[in-house]
Amino acid sequence: MSYVHGYDQRERERLHDQAGTLVELLHGDTSYPAGARVLEAGCGVGAQTVTLSARSPQARFTSIDVSAESIAVARKRKLANVEFRRADLFAMPHETFDHVFVCFVLEHLPDPVAALARLRTMLRPGGTITVIEGDHGSAYFHPETQAAHEAIRCLVALQRDAGGDSLIGRRLYPLVSAAGFEHVRVSPRMVYVDGSRPDLIDGFTRKTFTAMIEGVRETAISEGLIDAARFDEGIRDLYRTAADDGTFSYTFFKAVGTNGVEADDLAGQLAGSGASFTDLLGRAGD
Amino acid sequence: MSYVHGYDQRERERLHDQAGTLVELLHGDTSYPAGARVLEAGCGVGAQTVTLSARSPQARFTSIDVSAESIAVARKRKLANVEFRRADLFAMPHETFDHVFVCFVLEHLPDPVAALARLRTMLRPGGTITVIEGDHGSAYFHPETQAAHEAIRCLVALQRDAGGDSLIGRRLYPLVSAAGFEHVRVSPRMVYVDGSRPDLIDGFTRKTFTAMIEGVRETAISEGLIDAARFDEGIRDLYRTAADDGTFSYTFFKAVGTNGVEADDLAGQLAGSGASFTDLLGRAGD
Repeated sequence: MSYVHGYDQRERERLHDQAGTLVELLHGDTSYPAGARVLEAGCGVGAQTVTLSARSPQARFTSIDVSAESIAVARKRKLANVEFRRADLFAMPHETFDHVFVCFVLEHLPDPVAALARLRTMLRPGGTITVIEGDHGSAYFHPETQAAHEAIRCLVALQRDAGGDSLIGRRLYPLVSAAGFEHVRVSPRMVYVDGSRPDLIDGFTRKTFTAMIEGVRETAISEGLIDAARFDEGIRDLYRTAADDGTFSYTFFKAVGTNGVEADDLAGQLAGSGASFTDLLGRAGD
Repeated sequence: MSYVHGYDQRERERLHDQAGTLVELLHGDTSYPAGARVLEAGCGVGAQTVTLSARSPQARFTSIDVSAESIAVARKRKLANVEFRRADLFAMPHETFDHVFVCFVLEHLPDPVAALARLRTMLRPGGTITVIEGDHGSAYFHPETQAAHEAIRCLVALQRDAGGDSLIGRRLYPLVSAAGFEHVRVSPRMVYVDGSRPDLIDGFTRKTFTAMIEGVRETAISEGLIDAARFDEGIRDLYRTAADDGTFSYTFFKAVGTNGVEADDLAGQLAGSGASFTDLLGRAGD
């Protein structure tokens, strides 16, 4: 299975920009107690690890990735409470963790439930899993054009050809449940961009989403999914949504579940979720 | 211009269910001070008026609609602080209000900016407008099927043929801005439904969204937009998303703006919105 986004410098910068802009939205409600052993599976170059480890300075992270090149880049970050390790989740020696964290990884896997089930075997009873994924089918915008959607569909198709699913966000609840986790709660994190939000116009519409679609230009054209003129028209249309009178919407999904019914660490988190109608609804941007 | 949803009893029940389930999400942050004169434009049978007037018991509402039949139904609600009046926004005698409220109305109008501009002339300087609309293009779900999207597109097409736009939610920021309002802030209100949220499975996926699409069945078929078997397949697929392993997402948009730069009543609301990154993002379900 190849990684659809590739590993070049520009991709590193994109992941860095993405992590920087979306930190609060995605990670604001994740922290681990002192002494907790946390496995981050599929850390890549450590773009999320920086935030994750800074928010839980007393926890100890083991951040793994199959790519030796990515791990080499990640190690340069010199994070005191993180051990970066090149490892294949399915081949690594057995070890038990208090918590597991997975971000932007399942979308690339042909069998995400198998990966989740494997992660569950590495979790102590009552430990938690946190999963964050995007969903490219959640993107809609103004002005909306056919060409823009065709360009987006190139990335969706390439990711599917590589065995992944870039529309996975909406499926997190059934996937995490099917892997045997309990107390599964999913909350959407919607990014909405309009002319009043210049930070997001630049940080999200341009430098995160559209840059990500642009990143598959050569592959999409050489695979015959689209011709160059049409792809470029779609990209221009996506940049057009970043104008003052344009808007852009995209939703990430975050799931938390526990291994078994004890849910000790989730107690506080779940306490407020039973009776309130508001909590039953999406909590984007809380 | 005909009202695409029709005016029959079932539609009244749907609007009632819709209003009941979504009250907190849509209206939780709207209230008006004692003595404020509020114009609700396009109140229909008063489904939103019930909530609106109950949340601001000391404000005085003038709720208008062009349909005499709807106004007759609305009056039976006997709301102490509401005057229901049959009136055409563009033909009614000039009157000035402190605030204007418009919910699920612009989607049916051929020229929403003209309606917004007309409403602005009826607003005192510094008064606010609040606009709430859905966006049927924001609907995505699991399992996702082509037939389900074809059924949804029937409603979108019928509404477009009638001069409206059921994808208007994403356009609220440019529309309200173009009508000359200041301090325009739009926040998305996302409804996310999965197997852990039985209230929403029933109240939203089944009885609000899918029931609304089902409501155009006869018209869509008689207009030749789709054949009966295909439409029914799409509806079955939408109900399928209400199963335990299905998910459903839909987003409403709420805009608030002021007439002129004074923004007296919005001061509190805007005070918290300058510096926080979180506030720049969508606030669904706050």
